[in-house]
Amino acid sequence: MNIPQTSSPRVVIVGGGFAGLAAARGLEEQELQVVLIDKHNYHTFQPLLYQVATGGLEPDSIAFPLRKRFNDVENFYFRLAEVTKIDSENNTLETTIGCIEYDILILATGSTTNFFGNKNIQENSMEMKSVPQALNIRSLVLENFEEALLESNLEKRLALMNFVIVGGGPTGVELAGALAEMKKGILPKDYPDLDIRQMKINLIQSSGELLKGMSNKASQKAEDFLRKLGVDVWKNLRVLDYDGETVTTNGEDHFKAQTVIWAAGVKGALVKGMHTDCVLERPCRIKVDRYNKVVGYDNIYAVGDVACMETETYKYGHPMMAQPAIQQGRLVAKNIIAQLKGNSQKAFVYNNKGSMATIGRNKAVVDLPKWKFQGVFAWFVWMFVHLFSLIGFRNKVIVFMNWVYNYIRFDRETRLIIRPYKRKNKYSFDKEHV
Amino acid sequence: MNIPQTSSPRVVIVGGGFAGLAAARGLEEQELQVVLIDKHNYHTFQPLLYQVATGGLEPDSIAFPLRKRFNDVENFYFRLAEVTKIDSENNTLETTIGCIEYDILILATGSTTNFFGNKNIQENSMEMKSVPQALNIRSLVLENFEEALLESNLEKRLALMNFVIVGGGPTGVELAGALAEMKKGILPKDYPDLDIRQMKINLIQSSGELLKGMSNKASQKAEDFLRKLGVDVWKNLRVLDYDGETVTTNGEDHFKAQTVIWAAGVKGALVKGMHTDCVLERPCRIKVDRYNKVVGYDNIYAVGDVACMETETYKYGHPMMAQPAIQQGRLVAKNIIAQLKGNSQKAFVYNNKGSMATIGRNKAVVDLPKWKFQGVFAWFVWMFVHLFSLIGFRNKVIVFMNWVYNYIRFDRETRLIIRPYKRKNKYSFDKEHV
Repeated sequence: MNIPQTSSPRVVIVGGGFAGLAAARGLEEQELQVVLIDKHNYHTFQPLLYQVATGGLEPDSIAFPLRKRFNDVENFYFRLAEVTKIDSENNTLETTIGCIEYDILILATGSTTNFFGNKNIQENSMEMKSVPQALNIRSLVLENFEEALLESNLEKRLALMNFVIVGGGPTGVELAGALAEMKKGILPKDYPDLDIRQMKINLIQSSGELLKGMSNKASQKAEDFLRKLGVDVWKNLRVLDYDGETVTTNGEDHFKAQTVIWAAGVKGALVKGMHTDCVLERPCRIKVDRYNKVVGYDNIYAVGDVACMETETYKYGHPMMAQPAIQQGRLVAKNIIAQLKGNSQKAFVYNNKGSMATIGRNKAVVDLPKWKFQGVFAWFVWMFVHLFSLIGFRNKVIVFMNWVYNYIRFDRETRLIIRPYKRKNKYSFDKEHV
Repeated sequence: MNIPQTSSPRVVIVGGGFAGLAAARGLEEQELQVVLIDKHNYHTFQPLLYQVATGGLEPDSIAFPLRKRFNDVENFYFRLAEVTKIDSENNTLETTIGCIEYDILILATGSTTNFFGNKNIQENSMEMKSVPQALNIRSLVLENFEEALLESNLEKRLALMNFVIVGGGPTGVELAGALAEMKKGILPKDYPDLDIRQMKINLIQSSGELLKGMSNKASQKAEDFLRKLGVDVWKNLRVLDYDGETVTTNGEDHFKAQTVIWAAGVKGALVKGMHTDCVLERPCRIKVDRYNKVVGYDNIYAVGDVACMETETYKYGHPMMAQPAIQQGRLVAKNIIAQLKGNSQKAFVYNNKGSMATIGRNKAVVDLPKWKFQGVFAWFVWMFVHLFSLIGFRNKVIVFMNWVYNYIRFDRETRLIIRPYKRKNKYSFDKEHV
């Protein structure tokens, strides 16, 4: 790894997402050596991935180079690598670029798509947890329309224009809304020789309501907004399989579709080598105490999506979202500093600032702790909050300019197939690469 | 292809670059059916590719969706395909998505990298004629530094930080300058634990001057600018081979380098099926008359890089650049309309508006027909001209914002490895995909 041994304790952070970044920032300017490891050289602002997938934003606008964030930080090291195993007996991490010892380890590996063990679905459907995956969706959607244009067989053409989004959480809802806006504003102009009315957007939710975890009002309003935009919302329907052609469900409805986007679940991105008794099977997350210390270890912490802190309010851990991740990351840094200074640590209490989702132009739902509202104002609040949460001044400005442009012009201009997804056999481009 | 047969003559344009786009625009609103075929669904603004390669601009900012350009044009059809063969006896094109008949054919296929038959160089070096290729260079440069950080063998580390650019035309000069600015401003901050002084940028030119075709003053000043930025300029040196490790030349100097960017030549992107007597071997372009009509054909035109019109001033054809391409594209449209209306055609006369190249911040060279100047003002002129040549209002604004930001902050923020290039074995990502 080529990192110098110093007298300062070494904290290794795995993952530069919301939690890992917050932890690393909290550990600046301390008598510590901090090593941040990530498989990408950038931080991804995941809440806006769906806009990259639907051509509203450029990929670089929602990603931020990790090295730049820590340009002026002393005793900080970034390494582009994937961690393959933890050897906790020797306080060592095995990675794709060699081994590294740690004094304190912070796991902030985030989450990956949960296919619940269904290999067929995993192989044939699209996921959206990273920038390349979002770009793959963008390419596939556009390639489908190019292909539909040439397809004389009606059934095949309909399958190319049939989009199935599985999972009615924020990702599924926002993606369905964005696709519906493409259908309305852009596709009829881009494909005048195709009957875009034949395009279908199906959002399938296994339970009885969308945006589980938000208020009933938000859930109901989001559904109304989607239906108004022409999305077919299917509730209480469970997807059982997808062979690349047909989505089979536990109901009477099946779907012939070339594109299935799986947003029905996430699970903690575990690392090999942990004791089995600290790994929770069901949500597939690492069990931590109130200080985000992994159960059974003295010097390993876990924060964000991968960590499961069971509390009275959050019996199955905190929601796998940006806010708990950021707050845990910040606190774990403070607690590590306190511990090293011999001070007492502070237990984590989640400050739920609220949640929100956008469905489309002038259409969003916002649940604040004391105020729940929907519609135009909610949409502006959503934009404002996301804009200011983006890292980096340049990204804020560029995203803002894009949004202003898209709003005024009813457009999404980055509908480019930079790397084709479907022609992967020809170009040996693989969906494995995320 | 699924394009309706109408009573109007059908003009098929192959290629949506500068020439093809200009031709298509010139044929709007006529009693014609226009079919535009391109292997990408976007137009690429090639003069700024080097900024994508060096992290100054996002790829989407210099690409423009072709369908959008023709949203409101009647009787216009775009098809995403590659042309595999011309069957001129039957007035038919064979493509990857089927055959199409034409009444008039316009070849605007542009140019590809010319390796002059050297398979080794072709296999081991990078080219920069498309957005994915520029992104590959960006990834490779950054991956090299990540790897250099870990490399304890000095010779190997130096090879990772040694960049060889072959070809001292505008592409080579601009790329060398941009890399030198990365070395100066960004890399030392991003890689504080690496001795960036060990990074070398070599620009190799086989003849005695850079920017051949521009004035001596421009050529000399560009060289001065490059040397000031720390670029090693090698003149009168010819690269003979590159095996992936060592660049061998016809001189005494050889270069151990992990990265070779080949900007030493282009050739017309020919299509199979033409009579051999209209294909010029040496520049590998299609011979056209003064009306851009391909020699030996009545209804096939060629415009832009692929076309070679031998005139008294331009004995080996016009320079393979944007300006002649745009002018030929425009005129060929007018001439086709004239022909169909029974009016006389106009011979092409190239209006050379001048040429320019940028080396770095405040450093550019501009040759206008009556005025040649270099330095800060030239740099602003360069920016102004390129900004206003970009297609689309959004792209103009976003590029402008990026440039202002980069100028004020001495930064290039899009240094992201979205799709790794080197780890292609692992991820089966192939350089073939351009």
